[in-house]
Amino acid sequence: MEDANRTPVTVIGLGAMGRALAGAFLDNGHPTTVWNRSIGKAEELAVRGATVANTVDEAIAASPVVVICVLDYAVVHEILGPLSGSIAGRTLVNLTNGTPKQAREAAEWAAGYGADYLDGGIMAVPVMIGRPEAVILYSGSAGAFGVHERALGALGTATYLNADAGHASLYDLALLAAMYGMFGGVYQAAAMVGSEKVPAAEFAPMVVSWLNAMTAALPAVAEAMDAGDGADDDDSNLQMQAVSFANILSASREQGISTALLEPMQALLDRAVAAQRGGAGTPSLIAMLRTDPVPA
Amino acid sequence: MEDANRTPVTVIGLGAMGRALAGAFLDNGHPTTVWNRSIGKAEELAVRGATVANTVDEAIAASPVVVICVLDYAVVHEILGPLSGSIAGRTLVNLTNGTPKQAREAAEWAAGYGADYLDGGIMAVPVMIGRPEAVILYSGSAGAFGVHERALGALGTATYLNADAGHASLYDLALLAAMYGMFGGVYQAAAMVGSEKVPAAEFAPMVVSWLNAMTAALPAVAEAMDAGDGADDDDSNLQMQAVSFANILSASREQGISTALLEPMQALLDRAVAAQRGGAGTPSLIAMLRTDPVPA
Ligand SMILES: NC(=O)c1ccc[n+]([C@@H]2O[C@H](COP(=O)([O-])OP(=O)(O)OC[C@H]3O[C@@H](n4cnc5c(N)ncnc54)[C@H](OP(=O)(O)O)[C@@H]3O)[C@@H](O)[C@H]2O)c1
Ligand SMILES: NC(=O)c1ccc[n+]([C@@H]2O[C@H](COP(=O)([O-])OP(=O)(O)OC[C@H]3O[C@@H](n4cnc5c(N)ncnc54)[C@H](OP(=O)(O)O)[C@@H]3O)[C@@H](O)[C@H]2O)c1
Repeated sequence: MEDANRTPVTVIGLGAMGRALAGAFLDNGHPTTVWNRSIGKAEELAVRGATVANTVDEAIAASPVVVICVLDYAVVHEILGPLSGSIAGRTLVNLTNGTPKQAREAAEWAAGYGADYLDGGIMAVPVMIGRPEAVILYSGSAGAFGVHERALGALGTATYLNADAGHASLYDLALLAAMYGMFGGVYQAAAMVGSEKVPAAEFAPMVVSWLNAMTAALPAVAEAMDAGDGADDDDSNLQMQAVSFANILSASREQGISTALLEPMQALLDRAVAAQRGGAGTPSLIAMLRTDPVPA
Repeated sequence: MEDANRTPVTVIGLGAMGRALAGAFLDNGHPTTVWNRSIGKAEELAVRGATVANTVDEAIAASPVVVICVLDYAVVHEILGPLSGSIAGRTLVNLTNGTPKQAREAAEWAAGYGADYLDGGIMAVPVMIGRPEAVILYSGSAGAFGVHERALGALGTATYLNADAGHASLYDLALLAAMYGMFGGVYQAAAMVGSEKVPAAEFAPMVVSWLNAMTAALPAVAEAMDAGDGADDDDSNLQMQAVSFANILSASREQGISTALLEPMQALLDRAVAAQRGGAGTPSLIAMLRTDPVPA
């Protein structure tokens, strides 16, 4: 139900995520205007009370806060590029996945049109949106975040990082890298036990408790990383790890499972051992991921 | 302190893990005999009450349960190969990391000498040994497990899978694949934010809560896997995922971080999209990891 105390919001892009965002605004009583290239995706939201804009300009004119969430930044520019200044004075909240560089360019572009800019990284899948466990990371205009923090809270837990518009993207992509690493490992694991007809659902609880035990160790690993890369790890040395990792590849081959997802980690471990870092721990692997001197 | 009601045990191999295993047996009052190639590693255990055997034969003669935990199966055979039958009537518990094939061969070898055989996968780092969160997976002789379950419980939570000696290894390596995937993703993430001087320790709590939120979704993903590979995922379609995954690579490049750990997953996503599975969800990726027909 609309609530006069709630900031009017516009949502551009009604894919799976945009629809969840617009739905959460509606659930929190925000007057909500929506626009999408394929207009059919607005139907259910219209039934729930959303105003469906006929044009992008109309959508932007409707609200001080304009959220855009589309496939990528090329689409953002395709949609917003021709809008001839209607964005001046608005707060543009770009929740589209992109790189830090793209976010910084978009911030400059928005500033050029007199708009405030917040870039956001959605750490959630659509079903989580509107619940506190949906964390959305923001960076860019601190003033705009302060003014609209409450409205953005309708989407989940709104976490402001800093004024660099690129940081939300950087954190977002880093967290996604961690997630896809984990998922890739889980797919490999499921394929391995699946080759002996073990159902994934039977194996899943074991994977979850094992991964949770291992993620619990990450804060300590992170401290080791910050303390210095090369420290010896007497508990789980890299040479032993390289040997047992090779067993994962051998077993995958024996079971008819691809080793493609595993090979770069094996190469990294082998390289560490060859560089006489066999006694060192895994944090020293991170240093090997740096291809260039770290920017100042 | 030794306890007359506790089964005498032998531990062969006193690396980081073997020392933790022997220490846990001692803590639980088991008369404990140890052997290691480099004998110096037995010193601290001797002070704690362990008997240090001079030869492998002597070590095996000392106890009905002989645990071996060395670098790999080649070392297991190097150590046990020449032992001329002294293993008859013993239970050999091999906690060395290896493949299912190696485990099955070792079980046959042990049977040939009249020994019971249990293969185990240690789902723990040494500091966890002796605590319930240290899960050790066993497969092989059900009878031997039944008889020695209590003694093995000194090491952590002893979980028996089934009579196929290869299964503990398979599960172990699958779980390690999941863990290394997760760790690889976390290293990538740490390197990415580290390129902007964000300390890993500051970033770690965010990674942990994000990964825990994502592992919580695994049981549902597993059910989708078991139900069939190709079902559409309207929430997080693969085409969108392939596009945002490419952003992780672009951002890594921009920040001077290697993309080596990311490339196979990008290839998998791209292949899924090219195969017109863009609307499908991630479970369909698992099918693409099968290189051979799944064994019956
Ligand atoms: N779904 C998730 O789990 C999730 C999680 C976190 C972040 N995200 C991010 O949220 C953003 C949207 O994802 P999604 O899941 O909503 O994707 P989606 O369901 O595939 O929707 C894509 C959206 O982009 C629009 N679009 C694509 N190409 C376009 C073009 N050339 N011109 C105009 N509009 C175009 C689509 O419009 P049409 O409807 O007209 O095709 C649709 O609104 C992405 O950046 C994604 O990385 C998604
Ligand atoms: N540490 C962990 O975090 C962990 C976790 C789960 C499973 N594991 C598994 O536990 C096993 C042992 O790992 P670890 O951490 O104890 O490794 P480690 O500290 O590197 O110790 C290796 C052990 O193997 C012995 N060894 C190596 N080559 C040998 C040879 N040619 N002849 C005789 N002995 C030899 C070593 O004897 P010397 O002392 O004489 O060199 C030592 O006892 C591995 O299979 C590993 O995958 C380890």
